[in-house]
Amino acid sequence: MSEQTRLSGIFTPNIIPLDSQGRIDEEETRRYVDWLIDHGVHGLYPNGSTGEFTRFTAEERIRIIEIITDQVGGRVPVLAGAAEANTSETIRACEKYHELGVRAVAIVSPFYYPVSPQGVYAYFREIALHSPVDVTLYNIPMFASPIDVPTVQRLAEECERVVAIKDSSGDLPNMMRMITAVRPLRPDFSFLTGWDPALVAMMLMGADGGTNASSGIVPEVTRKLYDLTVKGELDEAIALQYRLLTLFDAMILNSDFPEGFRAALQLRGIQTGEGRQPMSSPQQSDLEQLRHELQCLLADHGYSEEPAGGCHAPAVGSDEISRIVQGVMGELARRGIA
Amino acid sequence: MSEQTRLSGIFTPNIIPLDSQGRIDEEETRRYVDWLIDHGVHGLYPNGSTGEFTRFTAEERIRIIEIITDQVGGRVPVLAGAAEANTSETIRACEKYHELGVRAVAIVSPFYYPVSPQGVYAYFREIALHSPVDVTLYNIPMFASPIDVPTVQRLAEECERVVAIKDSSGDLPNMMRMITAVRPLRPDFSFLTGWDPALVAMMLMGADGGTNASSGIVPEVTRKLYDLTVKGELDEAIALQYRLLTLFDAMILNSDFPEGFRAALQLRGIQTGEGRQPMSSPQQSDLEQLRHELQCLLADHGYSEEPAGGCHAPAVGSDEISRIVQGVMGELARRGIA
Amino acid sequence: MSEQTRLSGIFTPNIIPLDSQGRIDEEETRRYVDWLIDHGVHGLYPNGSTGEFTRFTAEERIRIIEIITDQVGGRVPVLAGAAEANTSETIRACEKYHELGVRAVAIVSPFYYPVSPQGVYAYFREIALHSPVDVTLYNIPMFASPIDVPTVQRLAEECERVVAIKDSSGDLPNMMRMITAVRPLRPDFSFLTGWDPALVAMMLMGADGGTNASSGIVPEVTRKLYDLTVKGELDEAIALQYRLLTLFDAMILNSDFPEGFRAALQLRGIQTGEGRQPMSSPQQSDLEQLRHELQCLLADHGYSEEPAGGCHAPAVGSDEISRIVQGVMGELARRGIA
Amino acid sequence: MSEQTRLSGIFTPNIIPLDSQGRIDEEETRRYVDWLIDHGVHGLYPNGSTGEFTRFTAEERIRIIEIITDQVGGRVPVLAGAAEANTSETIRACEKYHELGVRAVAIVSPFYYPVSPQGVYAYFREIALHSPVDVTLYNIPMFASPIDVPTVQRLAEECERVVAIKDSSGDLPNMMRMITAVRPLRPDFSFLTGWDPALVAMMLMGADGGTNASSGIVPEVTRKLYDLTVKGELDEAIALQYRLLTLFDAMILNSDFPEGFRAALQLRGIQTGEGRQPMSSPQQSDLEQLRHELQCLLADHGYSEEPAGGCHAPAVGSDEISRIVQGVMGELARRGIA
Repeated sequence: MSEQTRLSGIFTPNIIPLDSQGRIDEEETRRYVDWLIDHGVHGLYPNGSTGEFTRFTAEERIRIIEIITDQVGGRVPVLAGAAEANTSETIRACEKYHELGVRAVAIVSPFYYPVSPQGVYAYFREIALHSPVDVTLYNIPMFASPIDVPTVQRLAEECERVVAIKDSSGDLPNMMRMITAVRPLRPDFSFLTGWDPALVAMMLMGADGGTNASSGIVPEVTRKLYDLTVKGELDEAIALQYRLLTLFDAMILNSDFPEGFRAALQLRGIQTGEGRQPMSSPQQSDLEQLRHELQCLLADHGYSEEPAGGCHAPAVGSDEISRIVQGVMGELARRGIA
Repeated sequence: MSEQTRLSGIFTPNIIPLDSQGRIDEEETRRYVDWLIDHGVHGLYPNGSTGEFTRFTAEERIRIIEIITDQVGGRVPVLAGAAEANTSETIRACEKYHELGVRAVAIVSPFYYPVSPQGVYAYFREIALHSPVDVTLYNIPMFASPIDVPTVQRLAEECERVVAIKDSSGDLPNMMRMITAVRPLRPDFSFLTGWDPALVAMMLMGADGGTNASSGIVPEVTRKLYDLTVKGELDEAIALQYRLLTLFDAMILNSDFPEGFRAALQLRGIQTGEGRQPMSSPQQSDLEQLRHELQCLLADHGYSEEPAGGCHAPAVGSDEISRIVQGVMGELARRGIA
Repeated sequence: MSEQTRLSGIFTPNIIPLDSQGRIDEEETRRYVDWLIDHGVHGLYPNGSTGEFTRFTAEERIRIIEIITDQVGGRVPVLAGAAEANTSETIRACEKYHELGVRAVAIVSPFYYPVSPQGVYAYFREIALHSPVDVTLYNIPMFASPIDVPTVQRLAEECERVVAIKDSSGDLPNMMRMITAVRPLRPDFSFLTGWDPALVAMMLMGADGGTNASSGIVPEVTRKLYDLTVKGELDEAIALQYRLLTLFDAMILNSDFPEGFRAALQLRGIQTGEGRQPMSSPQQSDLEQLRHELQCLLADHGYSEEPAGGCHAPAVGSDEISRIVQGVMGELARRGIA
Repeated sequence: MSEQTRLSGIFTPNIIPLDSQGRIDEEETRRYVDWLIDHGVHGLYPNGSTGEFTRFTAEERIRIIEIITDQVGGRVPVLAGAAEANTSETIRACEKYHELGVRAVAIVSPFYYPVSPQGVYAYFREIALHSPVDVTLYNIPMFASPIDVPTVQRLAEECERVVAIKDSSGDLPNMMRMITAVRPLRPDFSFLTGWDPALVAMMLMGADGGTNASSGIVPEVTRKLYDLTVKGELDEAIALQYRLLTLFDAMILNSDFPEGFRAALQLRGIQTGEGRQPMSSPQQSDLEQLRHELQCLLADHGYSEEPAGGCHAPAVGSDEISRIVQGVMGELARRGIA
């Protein structure tokens, strides 16, 4: 558990393609895994929120990890979502996924019932004490009981098995608070952000990477974002972060999560099938319109053809973004000389 | 589906006793069912939030309905919580529970992912179209995506299978809005409140009863509350509602739900075992103290011995409550004469 | 400070009519005061939230109390909103309003900055220690720091000057908690609800009346609602409460508060002028449509002519409401016999 | 209104020292102004939230701007908080402050009443149309109606007078959204962050500076933070940002805002006097303890003596922070080489 092995990079919380009967489409899932690895993701993260883990049965969740680990075949590490109905079931999943060779599991904080910080602590401690595989805490306060800084610190201190936190809050100062509280004690502990538009800033402040839904759609972009940031090529990184923000917003706003991401993935050529959460007619129409918008954005990135009929000039095109960023960088440089 | 068959009364969202290994304690569950029926509940509501449906596996949830329906043996109607991972699984549960003879199922709105009103509509419509048994919508906005008034109205209009809503928000005017929107179109549609301290007021405004966690602990009290309200004996009903509030607050505040209810049920002589959500040491100490307080409250109601060492004078005792209510009633009477 | 003098009834949080230059229209304000008293309100409550106290200057707020107390001339008690920039200024306002003969002042909890319960306590205590006139606490957690139950209890115990709480949360169980905590110690302490659609239920549970924005628009309705409830004529009271809910919702939803109330008041013949908060063109169009809807509702109540062009059949008309309520009452009666 | 004049740098939202009677302490205020300028702040921002503008009377708010502008004497620009009871009064304040020579005014979004985006737009538009001086929008969604991105964009497009937004939300992606929406249209428009621990990240993403409460306490630190970021010396900037976070958290958490900042300012030698919001005894004790902690933190920064009795070893000292940051930077460098 040395610093060398710290979890780092972009782990893709992958969508699971479904067939026309709504069953797991194993073939397309395997093709998607290869496509992601070929496009540069550092790892896979099945059974995450983007992967709609709650909408699969317990048996299906196991099957998903089997397919993913088999198809990955050790090419990249796998971080497996392992939250089940209770701690016993979760520990059983940890054991199973350990046998399947995952690098670590990720366990979301208790949800449905709001659980107090003391309860969150007790929950993760119980799991960590019995898991044969490294555990990543998963903090997503929009969906589940928050994991506060003292709880992260305490779990990091007491449980060697707990090796990382994935934080999807997008709260930069809070990420800094966690790093401040934990890094001196546990240099092997990793901090991953699940909030895509803050990736560069989070990494600059010390985060080790991300588990970003966007990386399942434009893995080239998130990989480049990561590499540029690591290399310290900040002007390019920031320009690209701005471009990703526009795409991310189109996918996450104005549709029920993760429908926007599924629609975009179809445009990249993955046959996702339809999701399991039914949609009303207005939702389907909205999604059709979103598809058009996404296709234009992806075309603007160079990852798709323009849709039939073409695209309106974007409110803010890539040129303008470049201009903004050059302006920022120029001014920074100018002031720096002064 | 005439008005005569409208769901009404108090349906108990029962806790499931567990054995020392954390498994369903079937024998004690059966004993608890009998105890509840003997103490006057109008119906059972297994796999509700109080019953911690999310902390059991899908197989256990089926087993729970099998045990409950078998033990009830037709003595009272059963409302079965049937929410599963997705609509297909939920519909399968509806079919299974229909075979087991439940009066209706209750389906909580989608949770974990916040779902828009359009998505909530599509979700329930899909289920209602395929369910062979009557469906109760379950609105609990603290835990799950809210079901707003237009959505309730639309589902009531379009789906004959949807026969009721259980609302746990405790928002009285919103209950009135739902009744205003739905009752003219569907006189057979039932409105049940899950917020115990508002039971009397909700019933006065037209609600048909409740699914109240308190009824699993003091079924005599909630039954009496219901009967008094139906009979129009409001002074007694209001006095009892105030007493129930004190007990309810003790059980629901200051501990993670539903631990306070479990602790109180143990004091009534049901061997609940420990819950599946682990507790930290401070939580266990707090619960010990809560147990003392609950025992005093139950003793005050006449449903338990005083704990060893006795009770401090309660902040507000039953005499004082009686005095308050008499004052209210007296003043109402006096002004009525004026 | 005996129980006989407990604040009770409906205190109208009156809007202040403005002239075409946006200044206080003193003449119309005086005419409005007379109109309200003639239509049965128990008291006036100038400088409340409906009265937009924050949108007047400190000098104007004083002038408002001068006009109101002068015009009221002792016919009904006046509850004067007295919150100013800080405790010193607030205490000066209390002194001034005391000289002007108000029955009590109402002080909203600190706003803009969220203040902790300890700070809320210290704030009110400071004011209560120096005010020469009775003080009503004003709890409106949607707009200002909440006043929690222990704080109300402590202030009631320690400060004789604090004689009432106006609670606009609409949270019925919380009102019951406050009554439970305070009434035994302070039988002279009054509880007023600011949430109009819960008025009947709040009074049944022991509240003494309300400070209801609706009473400034349809004072006959809220007076009748109060009288029916006091007399125990609950079937009529509940039917009327349902009708008021429809009107209240039309006024409070879909426009920035209190524009819906201002629009409705114009329909009752009070020349309110325009408000001080500017409106965009779409807002003005929306308000025009709302005016039509409000006129239909008021016509349905018998308080206005139908608008030119007539009204569509309301989604739920008065007949249907009557039918609903009769159904409820009939069923209660029927079950009571059983 | 060219890009050259874009508002930039750190504007200090200064506390106003009070005398023992709670009145403005003019002499100490003037001394504080000099001290701030001597310690490197780029501008002053009186009547901000830290300056507790709502707790002063309208006359006092004018007096504050008079004192500040007089004492500043043109050495640095002044951004004057000018929100008053309504648009007319606010516009009068704008005129007055313009005469006094302020660089711009800052107007907080409507508060107390939640105002819709359309209303927020109408409010600022009305002010911008009549103000003789540049206007900064002030977005602080924790305290006031949020100003959303389309509203910022529309105001920037339509109102030349609107030249900046001060955003205190700390939401980095949202700041990026505003920059994306506005900068192409208005290169002269400035973006200032009010969330101190995100200052470096915000500036890297294109923000022009900040209005940071911390800058009133440790102006050397925030100035250095700004300069380091502008110069691109990110490793030092980030290390300092971490140190500032610890101090900021100590000042903003665990006490009612802005008491922690006032306590710290006293430790820097400014006689602030006591605030106008009363404190309970427990609050005063807590503050005493906070003072000790703050003194240790300031001593650790080199800006104060250690308190009598010394300091415990900090949970995370400056050495550790340095080590963390060096680790981050080292790793970035190492990976950059790879």
